Amino acid sequence: MKIMVINGPNIDMLGIREPDIYGENTYANLLEMLKKYAEEKNIDIVPFQSNIEGEIVNAIHTAYFDGFDGIVINPAAYTHYSIAIADAIKAVDTPCVEVHLSNISARDEFRKISYTAQNCVGQIAGFGFFGYKMAVDALIDRIKNYE
Amino acid sequence: MKIMVINGPNIDMLGIREPDIYGENTYANLLEMLKKYAEEKNIDIVPFQSNIEGEIVNAIHTAYFDGFDGIVINPAAYTHYSIAIADAIKAVDTPCVEVHLSNISARDEFRKISYTAQNCVGQIAGFGFFGYKMAVDALIDRIKNYE
Amino acid sequence: MKIMVINGPNIDMLGIREPDIYGENTYANLLEMLKKYAEEKNIDIVPFQSNIEGEIVNAIHTAYFDGFDGIVINPAAYTHYSIAIADAIKAVDTPCVEVHLSNISARDEFRKISYTAQNCVGQIAGFGFFGYKMAVDALIDRIKNYE
Amino acid sequence: MKIMVINGPNIDMLGIREPDIYGENTYANLLEMLKKYAEEKNIDIVPFQSNIEGEIVNAIHTAYFDGFDGIVINPAAYTHYSIAIADAIKAVDTPCVEVHLSNISARDEFRKISYTAQNCVGQIAGFGFFGYKMAVDALIDRIKNYE
Amino acid sequence: MKIMVINGPNIDMLGIREPDIYGENTYANLLEMLKKYAEEKNIDIVPFQSNIEGEIVNAIHTAYFDGFDGIVINPAAYTHYSIAIADAIKAVDTPCVEVHLSNISARDEFRKISYTAQNCVGQIAGFGFFGYKMAVDALIDRIKNYE
Amino acid sequence: MKIMVINGPNIDMLGIREPDIYGENTYANLLEMLKKYAEEKNIDIVPFQSNIEGEIVNAIHTAYFDGFDGIVINPAAYTHYSIAIADAIKAVDTPCVEVHLSNISARDEFRKISYTAQNCVGQIAGFGFFGYKMAVDALIDRIKNYE
Amino acid sequence: MKIMVINGPNIDMLGIREPDIYGENTYANLLEMLKKYAEEKNIDIVPFQSNIEGEIVNAIHTAYFDGFDGIVINPAAYTHYSIAIADAIKAVDTPCVEVHLSNISARDEFRKISYTAQNCVGQIAGFGFFGYKMAVDALIDRIKNYE
Amino acid sequence: MKIMVINGPNIDMLGIREPDIYGENTYANLLEMLKKYAEEKNIDIVPFQSNIEGEIVNAIHTAYFDGFDGIVINPAAYTHYSIAIADAIKAVDTPCVEVHLSNISARDEFRKISYTAQNCVGQIAGFGFFGYKMAVDALIDRIKNYE
Amino acid sequence: MKIMVINGPNIDMLGIREPDIYGENTYANLLEMLKKYAEEKNIDIVPFQSNIEGEIVNAIHTAYFDGFDGIVINPAAYTHYSIAIADAIKAVDTPCVEVHLSNISARDEFRKISYTAQNCVGQIAGFGFFGYKMAVDALIDRIKNYE
Amino acid sequence: MKIMVINGPNIDMLGIREPDIYGENTYANLLEMLKKYAEEKNIDIVPFQSNIEGEIVNAIHTAYFDGFDGIVINPAAYTHYSIAIADAIKAVDTPCVEVHLSNISARDEFRKISYTAQNCVGQIAGFGFFGYKMAVDALIDRIKNYE
Amino acid sequence: MKIMVINGPNIDMLGIREPDIYGENTYANLLEMLKKYAEEKNIDIVPFQSNIEGEIVNAIHTAYFDGFDGIVINPAAYTHYSIAIADAIKAVDTPCVEVHLSNISARDEFRKISYTAQNCVGQIAGFGFFGYKMAVDALIDRIKNYE
Amino acid sequence: MKIMVINGPNIDMLGIREPDIYGENTYANLLEMLKKYAEEKNIDIVPFQSNIEGEIVNAIHTAYFDGFDGIVINPAAYTHYSIAIADAIKAVDTPCVEVHLSNISARDEFRKISYTAQNCVGQIAGFGFFGYKMAVDALIDRIKNYE
Repeated sequence: MKIMVINGPNIDMLGIREPDIYGENTYANLLEMLKKYAEEKNIDIVPFQSNIEGEIVNAIHTAYFDGFDGIVINPAAYTHYSIAIADAIKAVDTPCVEVHLSNISARDEFRKISYTAQNCVGQIAGFGFFGYKMAVDALIDRIKNYE
Repeated sequence: MKIMVINGPNIDMLGIREPDIYGENTYANLLEMLKKYAEEKNIDIVPFQSNIEGEIVNAIHTAYFDGFDGIVINPAAYTHYSIAIADAIKAVDTPCVEVHLSNISARDEFRKISYTAQNCVGQIAGFGFFGYKMAVDALIDRIKNYE
Repeated sequence: MKIMVINGPNIDMLGIREPDIYGENTYANLLEMLKKYAEEKNIDIVPFQSNIEGEIVNAIHTAYFDGFDGIVINPAAYTHYSIAIADAIKAVDTPCVEVHLSNISARDEFRKISYTAQNCVGQIAGFGFFGYKMAVDALIDRIKNYE
Repeated sequence: MKIMVINGPNIDMLGIREPDIYGENTYANLLEMLKKYAEEKNIDIVPFQSNIEGEIVNAIHTAYFDGFDGIVINPAAYTHYSIAIADAIKAVDTPCVEVHLSNISARDEFRKISYTAQNCVGQIAGFGFFGYKMAVDALIDRIKNYE
Repeated sequence: MKIMVINGPNIDMLGIREPDIYGENTYANLLEMLKKYAEEKNIDIVPFQSNIEGEIVNAIHTAYFDGFDGIVINPAAYTHYSIAIADAIKAVDTPCVEVHLSNISARDEFRKISYTAQNCVGQIAGFGFFGYKMAVDALIDRIKNYE
Repeated sequence: MKIMVINGPNIDMLGIREPDIYGENTYANLLEMLKKYAEEKNIDIVPFQSNIEGEIVNAIHTAYFDGFDGIVINPAAYTHYSIAIADAIKAVDTPCVEVHLSNISARDEFRKISYTAQNCVGQIAGFGFFGYKMAVDALIDRIKNYE
Repeated sequence: MKIMVINGPNIDMLGIREPDIYGENTYANLLEMLKKYAEEKNIDIVPFQSNIEGEIVNAIHTAYFDGFDGIVINPAAYTHYSIAIADAIKAVDTPCVEVHLSNISARDEFRKISYTAQNCVGQIAGFGFFGYKMAVDALIDRIKNYE
Repeated sequence: MKIMVINGPNIDMLGIREPDIYGENTYANLLEMLKKYAEEKNIDIVPFQSNIEGEIVNAIHTAYFDGFDGIVINPAAYTHYSIAIADAIKAVDTPCVEVHLSNISARDEFRKISYTAQNCVGQIAGFGFFGYKMAVDALIDRIKNYE
Repeated sequence: MKIMVINGPNIDMLGIREPDIYGENTYANLLEMLKKYAEEKNIDIVPFQSNIEGEIVNAIHTAYFDGFDGIVINPAAYTHYSIAIADAIKAVDTPCVEVHLSNISARDEFRKISYTAQNCVGQIAGFGFFGYKMAVDALIDRIKNYE
Repeated sequence: MKIMVINGPNIDMLGIREPDIYGENTYANLLEMLKKYAEEKNIDIVPFQSNIEGEIVNAIHTAYFDGFDGIVINPAAYTHYSIAIADAIKAVDTPCVEVHLSNISARDEFRKISYTAQNCVGQIAGFGFFGYKMAVDALIDRIKNYE
Repeated sequence: MKIMVINGPNIDMLGIREPDIYGENTYANLLEMLKKYAEEKNIDIVPFQSNIEGEIVNAIHTAYFDGFDGIVINPAAYTHYSIAIADAIKAVDTPCVEVHLSNISARDEFRKISYTAQNCVGQIAGFGFFGYKMAVDALIDRIKNYE
Repeated sequence: MKIMVINGPNIDMLGIREPDIYGENTYANLLEMLKKYAEEKNIDIVPFQSNIEGEIVNAIHTAYFDGFDGIVINPAAYTHYSIAIADAIKAVDTPCVEVHLSNISARDEFRKISYTAQNCVGQIAGFGFFGYKMAVDALIDRIKNYE
């Protein structure tokens, strides 16, 4: 089982960026945690991060062509306006789970709408790094039950 | 560790209600799954279901007074307009996790806004019954790390 | 043939409540009229009234489990915001006809939208008590032609 | 007793037009049904159909000057934007009942608002051809009780 | 003179609920204060609290049938969406005064609109417990001057 | 000098139509008044009335091709939604003055916007029949001063 | 007969202010024209201009207390948001006619709504200085016919 | 204890202005009532009225510099759009209570929002002259309890 | 192959109407161009123009009953509000292509929405007369490939 | 004559992406078709595709500096929110024609607005691959007639 | 070179007014700073402050008639709704630069729109007192380069 | 002192792009001016330009990691929708000043809102190239006074 974990803009700034909202752990810590969890679950996790919208679109296409079993995506700021990423998720049949570190329902008005979640299996928000583990679990559960 | 699992209106109709959206399992099946999961995780899970908004408010108050460690709540239809339930969640300091069986971002326009999620730790949507397990996991993780 | 007639909040105040809009007949008069009409049409009519949103949800579920052939519903104020009742109507396959005593298109702006009618067979508004007879007729017509 | 039954644009296309919404019966079938119902109820029913907004305004004026006792109107598409027809209904004191074949609350967003219903006695929607009978009944009931 | 004092959802949580907004006194303290004030003013005050919207509707009906001279109501969260309670207040001719502990104009956007105040004599907001005394005074003043 | 006076839908119902808003004089009285005023001012006034939007468009075209010096238009209900009439007024260079019998700013919300006035010289509203005289005066003033 | 002519903010800048919209004549020219017209019609015209919203409110009060027969008002920019002036017009029973030099329907979006016209007899827009004469005529017509 | 009572535009027209809404008592009557109440409560009440928005801003500044203990303000029409008065109230730390003679929730749509109340202690609406006494009481209560 | 080319209101005024937007060629020129193009492509083109909304509805019905292979339609002003024409296009299964002379995306806000295009095969805007040729080509392409 | 054909995000996924909307042909097929059409029309067509918004901006700049005669652009998802691409089209004087494979008026609400079409010559939507040929034809027609 | 510096409502309260937003310096300090800067730049700076909207309109007129070379204006609260001040700025050809002490984009939603900036040369916001110097610099730069 | 000057999409087209709005100077001229100003002020200015949203996000991160003292940013089109750039500015504690060549308040409706300015120190708009100097001055002033 092979899962791509895509992170969007400013996730590379974790630890520096608004620590009261996003916590004090860094992106490197996130990668570490994902690596350990992959071992624990005995699956492949391939991380990808970019601040460029179109490269995230590319990554989704790649996940499809390289036969990934699922995608965990935190589109960050692009969640709220990127029709391009939303279209990309819909274009492929790779199941996709959306994750947010913070509880986006409790923040700015413009963060309440998600263009991308519409085309995902589901959305997880507000649980920090732990949310990524939940997303991986959900994909494993789904893949097992639908095969 | 003691967790209350609150389900809102029409969740008692699972299996009968729009099976293409909510699946074919019944509310009894959900209770069974929760019971097993409680045993597996070695915690107490107390289920509650009501179609009456004010009784859900009451249940949240009860969870607080009876010293529950956390609440998993699927406010169902009330998610989108019950300021009373949202206020109740805010009134207590028991951590609350919102769950939805379906991916509410991908349905009616009026289901995109959640009044209740604003006062929860986070929200999980679109993973069917499995979402309840994820919510329990998130509460356990939170309780362990914040104590 | 067995039809449940559900009336929502403040319908129990008919005769007292804004008589220029709702007329001077009481809820008791309405029950009497329904009783006579049931005899005339040789069907069973079971009336139910509640001011509590969730009890109306319960009544709809009951109608389903008790094998009613149809529901006539006047959700009154809940028409305009109860997603819970709307979901309940959709959850069951019992055909439902919405009735309003007054012509809701000609009143407050917020009374122009009906959440519940979306999931009903149709809607009748503005004909006072006579509207309930029309609703019963429509259900009889429908049940006969679709069986 | 003399009732005019006015049908608006595209009602002449019944049977051809979106049969999943409007059914397979034709406008000729509707006329036939109305003719029989007029005989059954021992009243005069004068049908009128036009695709031209202003001719519908004219017909309403005619109904008034020719002493009709009531109007049954299905303004079809004009329901949602014809202030001219709405004004015409208000201009005359002939009671008017609005009918729709389909349940307009359950279709496009722009079909939820009715300009014309505001000036009618009431509105009936979602019962197909049977709705016309209901409208005639409502007019008869009203005329009898208000004279 | 007999006045019913109705409190809506989560008012039973006073003292626990967001003390920076609602103060540290409990609902029991409020009842005590009202009792003393009733003695001081030599009137009857009958308190009622419920988290269930429909029970508040019922209480308003009861106040009418039991001949209360006035109602002081804090509909709490229901203020902002309960057309059912608003209709109930309009249905009876018992004068009603709306009270809010906090200054609702200075909080969330959705707390700025009051459905219920439209049918009350007036509204008092932002004065904590003291606002209940003001409401009682206003009712006494009104009853004396209008009789 | 030759002026066309165009009246839109339901103006033929003056005297019958909502007399508290439109007065008790009939369309025949309006024609009479215009005839006298034409003699008094020594100009030609050609009246036209139709309930059909497209015929009003045609009349505006005719006014242009027949060399009229100006148009006085009361588009009635079409004021608020007829882009077709608005476009027709813009298509010709015949100066056009919009008149309304009632003060449209003080009525329904949807009567506050005028599509047609945007392409007219100006608008006069609220002066009953006298407004037509004012419009004729304004056209005469304009034609004299701009030639 | 005594008429007050009130002009609002920036009307004192006529001739300088956007001459392509407001023409090249000055406020002094307007006063002159009004003086001549008063003589011609044998009435008293008392002009007033202020850039201060509250002074216009005061002037309307004065017109009432000094027994003016009517008011011609060009509230200029205040037209579109001054509830204070609108309230003042409603507070007195002196008939008021609103005038605008330009055709406000054909300018900025925010100039399409008039708060003040709602409480006037009617509105005249787009006829430059001539509009003031029309307004005076309308007041004379009204006063003669209603006395 | 020294309280300034500020009244906004058209309050000087009480008795003349829409008596069905504002009652038949005049502004002089209001001053008289306040004078008596000041004696009864043994405090100083300094009244101020202006139709000029900026003078009300000035009065609030003066209240601050002259050491007033509180302000009772009825901003009248300015309530609904004067950010300047709202800013002035926020600029000073003198506690301010907003009063309205009528129940503003039950009137025009644009009267439902209050810019000024956001920065006040609270709001009282719908109790006529009596509301000013309630406001004074609320200030006394507050000053006593917070010192 | 037989194609109907329908033109809506004011298209008969081409050459006269706003030549900077619509060009200097007349409707006669358009007919001529279409005639030539029909010969060139060896198909039948039947032109129709009306300013009356309902006659355009009629023409669409006619195209259906007379077995036309396709419709090219420029609904002009009706594009933006005629639900009647939109419904007519949907009622028939004759493929329909919408054309606009000007680039409607670059003009008034209200011209950005097309009710009619929703039910067409596609839309072409901004290419003047040439757009009609493109529409004919598109129909030919479609008819050939789908038969 | 040299034309650049720019395709935006997810167009590289044609054939895989939602085939019921976009058809089963691939991007390679589109390139092939364009190549043949270039030969047929004896012009140069240079294709460009990117999922990155800013690279599309760059391509438009390049088209300008390299002296292209026109641009055919399908901005795909970016159509609906890329002010950057819209500004780029406006920045250059190379004529630009917008193409969409699907009929965007008949899909999601957010696909109805085009930022980019405002600055193009015109827009073509709903004709699949054939639309690209139409766009090329339109550019050829335009270049020939304007030189 | 002569520049008028106009300050709007509550700027006279600087130092007292919300010091966390506006800083602790007073209006007197601002005047002092401007005086020094005028000497440094060898120009005349004439300050003006008023809380009265109309007096600001008057000041703008005065600046024009007295031949000022430019205006620096901080319309404060009036920025967001004063069409009167916006019109005044447009009425004169004296170049005007808008300044705000705070970063208005980062405050209340209603402070994001500026009516007045539309008619200014430009806007500077968020730099405290230093912004006034920047505005003066911008005017000097402009006057020098455009003469 | 080291300042990064970031320019967004289409700024590289200055001189070619809409010269009536953006002037005739090129991006090269801007760089030259900045170079000279850096020497004059004795600071380091590092320019960066990209049409790609994510590269601007990257540049902001770089500015932070490379210890820049401040950022001057003209996000151009991205100003109005890039939550990604807005988040990046918030993520770093490097002070940021937003500059626009044109007066964005006086252009398209969609250019009135700035997502990015919310997280900047302040905004300068409408002063052409001179605005960049003002921004540099503002940063120097800020850095000096806050250290």
